Amino acid sequence: MSTPDQSPAFIDDATLLPAIVQDAATGQVLMLAYMNREAYAETLRTGKAVFFSRSKGRLWRKGEESGNEQLVRQLLLDCDRDTILLRVEQLGGAACHQGYASCFFRQVTPTGLEIIAEKVFDPVAVYGREGH
Amino acid sequence: MSTPDQSPAFIDDATLLPAIVQDAATGQVLMLAYMNREAYAETLRTGKAVFFSRSKGRLWRKGEESGNEQLVRQLLLDCDRDTILLRVEQLGGAACHQGYASCFFRQVTPTGLEIIAEKVFDPVAVYGREGH
Repeated sequence: MSTPDQSPAFIDDATLLPAIVQDAATGQVLMLAYMNREAYAETLRTGKAVFFSRSKGRLWRKGEESGNEQLVRQLLLDCDRDTILLRVEQLGGAACHQGYASCFFRQVTPTGLEIIAEKVFDPVAVYGREGH
Repeated sequence: MSTPDQSPAFIDDATLLPAIVQDAATGQVLMLAYMNREAYAETLRTGKAVFFSRSKGRLWRKGEESGNEQLVRQLLLDCDRDTILLRVEQLGGAACHQGYASCFFRQVTPTGLEIIAEKVFDPVAVYGREGH
C-alpha cells in the first residue's frame, strides 16, 4: 500500500520514523523517540504522544508509568516526511526517565560530558529504580 | 572497540545516530539528519555540522552546496547517548533545501498538510533545480 502524500513516509507497518518532542511553550527539545504507523495513528486520534519502544518492542504511551504524558499541541512533518515533530505540553514538567525536564541534560565539552540541568523528580521514587 | 561513555553510542563505523538541529537563538527545530562516527568527529573538530547523507552515501558537510552552513554553538547528548542535539547558528537563514528556514514547514491538520512558513530563498536559484 502506498503512503498518501499527506502522511509520514511509513513504507509498511514495521517502518519506524524518528519523532522529535519539543516543549510547545519554551521551545526546549525534550526527547527523541520512534513511531510506527500505529503509534502515529493513535497519537493523532488521542492527542497524546504514543511511540513505538524499540527496547520494549511494543507501543509506548508516553507517561504510562510516570504519569508524565505529553499533550500534542502541534504536529509537523519535515520536507521528506520522514521525521515527525511534536510540539507538546509536558505534564509533570519532565520528559526524561532519569528525572530531567529534557533527555538532553548533558553537554559535550572538551573534557567530557557535563550535566547542565537540575533533576525535576527522583527516578527511584517514580519508577522504583533508576535508569530503567 | 567499545564506545567511551562520554561519546555517542556508535556501535561501529557504520552506525548512524539521529542528530536534531535547533536554532540556538530562536529555539526553532530546523532539521534532523544522521551522523556516523566520522561525521560526529569532524563536527567536533571543525565546529560546523557534518552529517552522513543516507541518499548520497557519503559525508555531507551541511551548506557545501548552498553555503548555508551551521555553526555549532552547543552540542548535547540524550540520556541513552543515541541521539545528538546541535544548537547552531544557521548561516543564510534557512536550513531546508526547499528554501524554508526549517524543514518542518508543514503542519498536520484534519484536512491534510498545511504550509505554515514563508520561503527564505528560491531553491531553483540556489541549487538550479527544486527538491533535489
